[in-house]
Amino acid sequence: MPASIKDVAKEAGVSIATVSRVLNDVDVVNEETKKKVVEAINKLGYRPNIVARSLKTQRTKTIGIIIPDISSQFYPEIVRGAEDVANIYDYNIMLCNTDLDPEKEMEYLRVLKEKMVDGVLYMSTSLEPNIVDLIDKLQLPMVLVETTNREGNIPSVTIDNEKAAFDAVNYLIKRGNKNIAYVGTHEDEVNASALRYKGYKHTLEENGLKLNENITYFGGLKAQDGYEGIVEILKHGKIDAVFCASDEIAMGAINALRDNGFRVPEDIDIIGFDNIYSASIFYPKITTIAQPMYDMGSVGMRMLIKIINKQEVESKNYILDHELIERDSCKK
Amino acid sequence: MPASIKDVAKEAGVSIATVSRVLNDVDVVNEETKKKVVEAINKLGYRPNIVARSLKTQRTKTIGIIIPDISSQFYPEIVRGAEDVANIYDYNIMLCNTDLDPEKEMEYLRVLKEKMVDGVLYMSTSLEPNIVDLIDKLQLPMVLVETTNREGNIPSVTIDNEKAAFDAVNYLIKRGNKNIAYVGTHEDEVNASALRYKGYKHTLEENGLKLNENITYFGGLKAQDGYEGIVEILKHGKIDAVFCASDEIAMGAINALRDNGFRVPEDIDIIGFDNIYSASIFYPKITTIAQPMYDMGSVGMRMLIKIINKQEVESKNYILDHELIERDSCKK
Repeated sequence: MPASIKDVAKEAGVSIATVSRVLNDVDVVNEETKKKVVEAINKLGYRPNIVARSLKTQRTKTIGIIIPDISSQFYPEIVRGAEDVANIYDYNIMLCNTDLDPEKEMEYLRVLKEKMVDGVLYMSTSLEPNIVDLIDKLQLPMVLVETTNREGNIPSVTIDNEKAAFDAVNYLIKRGNKNIAYVGTHEDEVNASALRYKGYKHTLEENGLKLNENITYFGGLKAQDGYEGIVEILKHGKIDAVFCASDEIAMGAINALRDNGFRVPEDIDIIGFDNIYSASIFYPKITTIAQPMYDMGSVGMRMLIKIINKQEVESKNYILDHELIERDSCKK
Repeated sequence: MPASIKDVAKEAGVSIATVSRVLNDVDVVNEETKKKVVEAINKLGYRPNIVARSLKTQRTKTIGIIIPDISSQFYPEIVRGAEDVANIYDYNIMLCNTDLDPEKEMEYLRVLKEKMVDGVLYMSTSLEPNIVDLIDKLQLPMVLVETTNREGNIPSVTIDNEKAAFDAVNYLIKRGNKNIAYVGTHEDEVNASALRYKGYKHTLEENGLKLNENITYFGGLKAQDGYEGIVEILKHGKIDAVFCASDEIAMGAINALRDNGFRVPEDIDIIGFDNIYSASIFYPKITTIAQPMYDMGSVGMRMLIKIINKQEVESKNYILDHELIERDSCKK
């Protein structure tokens, strides 16, 4: 028979209400009494019924994480960073895969609200207006990770994607490359990776290089998109290097180049984006822009917990540092 | 103002108790009344307070998933399979990373019990006696995925690791290889991968090949272990092929062979185990034993939900099929 709150009260020589106040961290209990209650709790191994307490405190010590797909290469490390921080602060995480389907995103938001999570860490491409409306209505504390928010009213953690693209393209230019292709998301799309195209375009301009639309290809962020992009580009133009908006694109691009008789990096330089694990073991190992995935998750979770606890958050939109990792897919 | 249970009762023309009985799926309500209540619920968009209901029904529609590390290459797909099935049956998942630390495993079990999860999907290497005791004490419905359970009293989903190792080693033997090295877990360890060494040993025996301990190496399952294993083995013996107990070992082994002037597969055949994503994009692409990771998660979750709902489960220990995937790391 596990110890009850009554046993704790008896052991500590206080009322049940006092034990309850200590458990719920209400500050009216004096330190001496608090100490007695905590000692009694430890002695008896008392564990309060968290679900019943949740109803009273309106806190479940649970945080929802909404992501496109945990089985992709990008999200597991973010989630790991988030869960590690959650664990430090005694929160658990509820994981929801949406496949970027807005219906699923909205349904999960509703379910998480019903299950009374204390907040949500949200990852998508961009927030559509109807989702922003729903978030407003549900009044869930929320932090966005690498997710565009047109209104900018929801706290977020990102990297500076445009500056990161600048660093990547500049690196290619400094190696003497002039005909630099782009394979990635279209600039009209509202998401983080679209900013990479913007960075690409501006860097060419700043260096007096003309944008050649024959050697840009817009598609998704998968290896298949990289493969198809290169096949298409090779039909229309001569290239020295490729800036890929994701590492998966870079892998597909390298395979397409190999299949068309080009060597990387001897003939063509390739730079990727993200620094997923596969980029580090691909042949050749891929030079890339590293997003600090673990930190994005852990910093995002820390912000969220501060918001939940009404603590001050230093910055509404937190920009983390990216890093260019030199490997073997660009000429030395 | 969201609709309350009172509004639903009024709309349906029934008592609050009747609405409650319908919501809690108690069978004493007649079909006609039930229909009226459901119509009223839909019309008003009523959503019951799930947390309050949980206390009454002792069900939270939440399932805990305990895994070593979501950021490893192996677990994300299992978790995705599990969450997809959970979602179909209106369950949410709570994700817990343990790093195989028994203290963390036990603490998560206690927390999940307190948060009243309906069951737990458990992944570790093996279940230590004190963890089995705790599981008994907490009386949490549980299914193990790819986790050894000495007593065999907890339902599980695995592949036949010994048979899979047999298939791998036999494949190497059929290609004319005689000096087949092993890099992986020691046979004395109580976990799934130790069974792979058993399979290796027996297959050699069955084919009249002598086990040569100079070309076996015991360590962990990471790329670094594969690299070190090959460096060690090359000091002591001549090898034609390597059976690696994981794909990460295979990657490390290939890199070590390359650094020592050997080509894969021209000089030495390599076979891996697991079929993680990286194995399919490594150079050369790695021939491997595929574990059906998505299915392990989804089948495990389906079993668990059946157990939670006191439905019959066909098999206490469910063995899923493995598959040998031929790629480029063995001679054709």
